[in-house]
Amino acid sequence: MKALFSCLCLALPLAGHLGLAQSPTPADDWKPATSNQPGKLYPQVNSEGRVKFRIVAPEARNVSVSFRDSSPFTQGEDGAWIGYTRPLDEGFHYYTITIDGAEVPDPNSRFFFGANRWGSGVEIPAHDQDFYALKNVPHGRLREVLFYSPSTDSVRRAFVYTPPGYDQDVDQRYPVLYLQHGWGENEYSWGAQGCAHLILDNLIAAHATRPFLLVMTYGMTNEIEFGRLREFDIGPFETVLLRELIPFIDATFRTRSDQRHRAMAGLSMGGMETKLITLRNPDTFSHIGLFSGGSIRPEDIADMTAFREKNRLVFVSYGSREERGAASGKVAAEALKQAGVNSHYYESPLTAHEWLSWRRSLYQMAPLLFTQER
Amino acid sequence: MKALFSCLCLALPLAGHLGLAQSPTPADDWKPATSNQPGKLYPQVNSEGRVKFRIVAPEARNVSVSFRDSSPFTQGEDGAWIGYTRPLDEGFHYYTITIDGAEVPDPNSRFFFGANRWGSGVEIPAHDQDFYALKNVPHGRLREVLFYSPSTDSVRRAFVYTPPGYDQDVDQRYPVLYLQHGWGENEYSWGAQGCAHLILDNLIAAHATRPFLLVMTYGMTNEIEFGRLREFDIGPFETVLLRELIPFIDATFRTRSDQRHRAMAGLSMGGMETKLITLRNPDTFSHIGLFSGGSIRPEDIADMTAFREKNRLVFVSYGSREERGAASGKVAAEALKQAGVNSHYYESPLTAHEWLSWRRSLYQMAPLLFTQER
Repeated sequence: MKALFSCLCLALPLAGHLGLAQSPTPADDWKPATSNQPGKLYPQVNSEGRVKFRIVAPEARNVSVSFRDSSPFTQGEDGAWIGYTRPLDEGFHYYTITIDGAEVPDPNSRFFFGANRWGSGVEIPAHDQDFYALKNVPHGRLREVLFYSPSTDSVRRAFVYTPPGYDQDVDQRYPVLYLQHGWGENEYSWGAQGCAHLILDNLIAAHATRPFLLVMTYGMTNEIEFGRLREFDIGPFETVLLRELIPFIDATFRTRSDQRHRAMAGLSMGGMETKLITLRNPDTFSHIGLFSGGSIRPEDIADMTAFREKNRLVFVSYGSREERGAASGKVAAEALKQAGVNSHYYESPLTAHEWLSWRRSLYQMAPLLFTQER
Repeated sequence: MKALFSCLCLALPLAGHLGLAQSPTPADDWKPATSNQPGKLYPQVNSEGRVKFRIVAPEARNVSVSFRDSSPFTQGEDGAWIGYTRPLDEGFHYYTITIDGAEVPDPNSRFFFGANRWGSGVEIPAHDQDFYALKNVPHGRLREVLFYSPSTDSVRRAFVYTPPGYDQDVDQRYPVLYLQHGWGENEYSWGAQGCAHLILDNLIAAHATRPFLLVMTYGMTNEIEFGRLREFDIGPFETVLLRELIPFIDATFRTRSDQRHRAMAGLSMGGMETKLITLRNPDTFSHIGLFSGGSIRPEDIADMTAFREKNRLVFVSYGSREERGAASGKVAAEALKQAGVNSHYYESPLTAHEWLSWRRSLYQMAPLLFTQER
């Protein structure tokens, strides 16, 4: 089967991810990245996880890419500049091309919203890419919904994933996971570089998770500079989410609208938002997921007896290369388990603060959701 | 109300579109384009419909934009290059920035698929922009659907617009308009730069059209070079559309699946596809729309008696600045009317082969669809 779109990653068999100890000459098995625009032959990826760029800039004096430790770009007789990266982690990475001092997107890549701008991204095939691949299985639907928000006096956008069969089985109602992006990202991120809909399609086809809705909206995180995140006020987003979006979703989709059937998770700053909002609203959410976004320690919980009674899951994850967070997340998860909470910890092998960690986190968390019907 | 996204165009009151006879000094009432990325102050648009660009490229020797007759870009002491265009037609235009010979997207604009690549676009507010503005009215939903196509052995994407209330009134069934993009565009185009969903939302809120579904998929037009369009074979797309997509839509959405309630329209090369497919399949489609994409003359119709019996509408439109097409389209539409067909011709004032012509065409055609229930 031919694969047409994003998150397909069906093309490249990987001999293995060799890390930094590779030979100085890149392996000559380059193939076009699956994240390229249609028909574009560059950037290319090789079996070491290096990326090779080709930028046509005949009159430029200097071309470079934002990946650190990349080779210097050199210009060929055809005017095109060629350069390549060190071996990168498996998964998805944002990048920027610089041409004579101008930071621009690579015109060959598709564009993703991250680092607070629409820009380039490249996909390094992962050895476990099958779980987020586009396959010939029943597909749910990702729908763009627009809702009016009185508190911000704006029409806001959300994306809602409905599982396969939602539009046919009109008597069935579904639990809901509210799923947040990170700082510098937006409501598009989970359905694009996150492959959330494909992860759910594949899990549901394998009967590995209960079908549920995903709701993804902009977490209002980008209005504050990255260096001042501690000053972030959760209040305005909490109002949009709890007073406006959730009632809208429950009124216009066939949800199960009780606390037992509502979860919230988020990555990075979206994890911070999830922690703040879920701990303040224990009667609204029963399942909590923090992906590379902090952890919940017993001392974060004011009334542990009430929390144990109401909460059904606390899921915390990190990439193994996020060493500090991973260490403290694991300790906190264990302490929470000792306190009687259904606490799960997951560590994504050989990834850092990046999308493969978060795709895997969703894949690991989904089967744990909405399983306790007591 | 604050407007957050594309196709909003709420910001700029236009004193009037002055054409080429403007003063040599641009009017100093620049405002950020509504097509910019969040928070970006450039490009800017003034009341003459000129666009001003700011490209940070400190070491570059030459910066330019693809709009013809633009001013030469000049570099300021801050390293940024500034340049501006002639007054442009109202509406949406694709463009490219060139930095020392490298054609790249403007990092400040949002990205749209056109000219066979994801790249920059700019929105010049139109005097009639209200019809495609995002307003606080009930909104339909644009959903991404994935369907398996045996004939191409691929999972293909379509976007389906369902009108407000579709997910609530589960007994109601709806007519369907299959709506095609042009060469170099794809299934995203009508729901992005086309504002098709907002046009329908606004028409439905005003009770000016019957609610119907829109289905937009990739017309397989980009596999052939622009100069060789006459060699285009409609067969593969006709198979995907008629044997695969339409049955999938009728099976998974609440459609009215008879010929009377199915329409097809397209712009430019999508109009050519519409003409070929609808004339070959008179028992499948009852309403036909060609936007800047040819016309249907009486001599194109093999059996006029049968066509008159089965067809409910032939809608042909052009921008007034597409002079040759507009002239022949008008003549053909009149001849078809004389032959007893429900033939409508629309000419978009002061626009060329561009999206404002096509937004207006959809707005004009929609009220004429599915009105004859005999």
